[in-house]
Amino acid sequence: MRRLIFALGLTLIAAQPGHTAENVTTFTLENGLEAVVLEDHRAPVVVHMLWYKAGSADEEPGMSGIAHFLEHLLFKATDTLESGEFSDIVSANGGSDNAFTSWDYTGYFQRVAADRLELMMKMEADRMRNIRLTEEDIVTERDVILEERNQRTDSEPGALFSEQRSAAQYLHHPYGTPIIGWRHEMEQLSIEDALDFYKKYYAPNAAVLVVAGDVDPTEVEALAKKHYGPLEPTPDLPERVRLSEPPQLAERRIMYEDARVSQPYVIRTYMAPERDAGDQKTAAALTMLAEILGGSAATSVFGKALQQDTQKAVYTSAFYSGLSYDDTNFGVVIVPGPRLSLQEAEDEMDAVIAKFMEDGVDPVQLERVKTQVRASEIYGNDDVGARAREYGASLTSGLTVQDVQEWPELLEEVTEQDILDAAKMVFDRKKAVTGWYQKPSTQEVTQ
Amino acid sequence: MRRLIFALGLTLIAAQPGHTAENVTTFTLENGLEAVVLEDHRAPVVVHMLWYKAGSADEEPGMSGIAHFLEHLLFKATDTLESGEFSDIVSANGGSDNAFTSWDYTGYFQRVAADRLELMMKMEADRMRNIRLTEEDIVTERDVILEERNQRTDSEPGALFSEQRSAAQYLHHPYGTPIIGWRHEMEQLSIEDALDFYKKYYAPNAAVLVVAGDVDPTEVEALAKKHYGPLEPTPDLPERVRLSEPPQLAERRIMYEDARVSQPYVIRTYMAPERDAGDQKTAAALTMLAEILGGSAATSVFGKALQQDTQKAVYTSAFYSGLSYDDTNFGVVIVPGPRLSLQEAEDEMDAVIAKFMEDGVDPVQLERVKTQVRASEIYGNDDVGARAREYGASLTSGLTVQDVQEWPELLEEVTEQDILDAAKMVFDRKKAVTGWYQKPSTQEVTQ
Repeated sequence: MRRLIFALGLTLIAAQPGHTAENVTTFTLENGLEAVVLEDHRAPVVVHMLWYKAGSADEEPGMSGIAHFLEHLLFKATDTLESGEFSDIVSANGGSDNAFTSWDYTGYFQRVAADRLELMMKMEADRMRNIRLTEEDIVTERDVILEERNQRTDSEPGALFSEQRSAAQYLHHPYGTPIIGWRHEMEQLSIEDALDFYKKYYAPNAAVLVVAGDVDPTEVEALAKKHYGPLEPTPDLPERVRLSEPPQLAERRIMYEDARVSQPYVIRTYMAPERDAGDQKTAAALTMLAEILGGSAATSVFGKALQQDTQKAVYTSAFYSGLSYDDTNFGVVIVPGPRLSLQEAEDEMDAVIAKFMEDGVDPVQLERVKTQVRASEIYGNDDVGARAREYGASLTSGLTVQDVQEWPELLEEVTEQDILDAAKMVFDRKKAVTGWYQKPSTQEVTQ
Repeated sequence: MRRLIFALGLTLIAAQPGHTAENVTTFTLENGLEAVVLEDHRAPVVVHMLWYKAGSADEEPGMSGIAHFLEHLLFKATDTLESGEFSDIVSANGGSDNAFTSWDYTGYFQRVAADRLELMMKMEADRMRNIRLTEEDIVTERDVILEERNQRTDSEPGALFSEQRSAAQYLHHPYGTPIIGWRHEMEQLSIEDALDFYKKYYAPNAAVLVVAGDVDPTEVEALAKKHYGPLEPTPDLPERVRLSEPPQLAERRIMYEDARVSQPYVIRTYMAPERDAGDQKTAAALTMLAEILGGSAATSVFGKALQQDTQKAVYTSAFYSGLSYDDTNFGVVIVPGPRLSLQEAEDEMDAVIAKFMEDGVDPVQLERVKTQVRASEIYGNDDVGARAREYGASLTSGLTVQDVQEWPELLEEVTEQDILDAAKMVFDRKKAVTGWYQKPSTQEVTQ
């Protein structure tokens, strides 16, 4: 499926005018609001996104879930809008809207006809500073997020496993706390907690505006000045410093057993550096390493060794996302076939990694991966929503517009030796958590 | 050695008048200072202890080490004393003094001739509210605590292992943070951080005074009123609530490898309830369980199975301390003999536990343990310093004087079934961390 999509992307792009860095305009308002405009005139639509440099990792300890809770509460009343009216107006104008919360950011977006941009800005600027919460909103919406946790996490063994692994991976840093929050803390979140977070972070100097689509950058800037310009910044906004990890000195393992598990697997995550502003080379090499090791069942190192050649595994993967404000993870997954135990699957995983470290990178495979990455980039450029998300996520994760624009070239420049060096650096078992996900087995897990 | 000491204790006590609960007097000053007086007129000495209900688990996240740092800084200047003068005066009066920091408390004590009690109180009350720190104190003493960390932790593989295990044991609660602090946070501790902690917690309403020895309770109260009475309490002292653990759903393992390891071992800790005010029965059963399983190489369950009978292990132990403000750990340790691998040692440990859960508690062994515990209690009563510490630690860990006094009887009343029930409750691998401590071994650790 994925390769098919890439192919489609290539076809589309060939038929369209180029969408390159030239289409990107930036400006910053006096109150600190950063803005990025991505021009794309193929269709008369606009994506209006407002990103806050505040995610769950910016929560005060003990307040887990407040960033996501507030995301829900932003759809309540403001001075000029009734509760729920925001989305109703977007719908009535033929658009759609939504929001999302991550460790590093919270974002709000609408996709509407291009001539409705000013209305979106007016409403988004309004709720940045003028939300009016009631005690009833808190009670009602807290039940909603608790039910959301119920459904997405507590009823999902894979999600619980992931939470426990993250908590084991990070000894101190808040990436070890789930975005949705620990239930016992969510239950205590109050209107004061929500307003504290809101007043601090929902401010122009902690926000990034991304407007993408059929717009004129000069007009966007004029509209932004008109609607976002008058908003007061948060004075003395603190530098964004989270609790940082102490040295990780000992390999960790975690055995999750749940009767609801249908397909056992072994997963290992290693601590890994993220993309830093002006310093993305290691992240580029790790991105390529993930593709080389686990990108494709047919041609990747894991796929060839454990799926194609031997059919020992039914799925293999390696993953890494450099878009993160602080240190992130590099992961590998093996889902064994029916004849392999998790121990055997893990042994195979280690053997494949060891052999890869000896053999090095196959230049033919690297060229193939680069072609895929290039296709993916081009396809990404073609999707105006995806481009907007990339800029929003990057600019709220500590990167600059220049970093975003240099990234494809950095991927292109990665050498076989870069990948091997990155692998040597990242494959440090002392900084890794190996997880087994399985049905309860009376004794075997203790071995 | 330990049994010999018990025997000595018994001998001494038999020759002396009784030291029972009748010797304990309590009072509370109007500013909130709680006090316990333990009379013991056998020698003309007094132990003067001031305990603060503030330990490293009460630090703000990111400030790890500040409680212990402040303990050092309390020996600097006050309005009336030069830096270092406090201890000089104690020495000049023939006494000794020291201080200690734990997760749940910080304590200061002096042992001097009984007629010097007022001087101790005067000086201790002075430094509770009137410390005068300079930037130079901070720089100098921060180097001292960093060097202390260097020597006691970073140069000691066993200490590093213990830190990494605690961090893996507690997913969220501050008991996962070392008392001495994470180095990178210690390096940042400032004079403001120290003074914030000091002003909040170094106050009569967060302190417990324990005076033990050749004193008259009425006089102690009069002196306490005179010296501690005028001190201002901290207004709105917050309730002592730490971050609490989310559900622990997956067994964890941790492999620590260090070339400096001389004797490998396997250790497992399970989350366990602590002694709660008016609710100490489970803790009493767990205390007895630890003695039954690992109290004596000659007669304990582990000792008999792995040391006496088979000589598979060179040391075995089970440990539990109920004195803790929040949930604590129950632990088991096996140090294998030269022919056993850590995996084999762990298998033996599991087999012994499984057999114990089937066989239940040997009533003869329980009676023997109770005799030892009784002896230990009596010996403890005989040591006025140890009694003072017990009251101080208990009262700063959420217990009352009544809880302390009921504890020996609760231990006495524990039945075989209570122990088995406690074992069933506590031996939950989902809440356990199993640690392997060993020299680096190229591949074996990954199995």
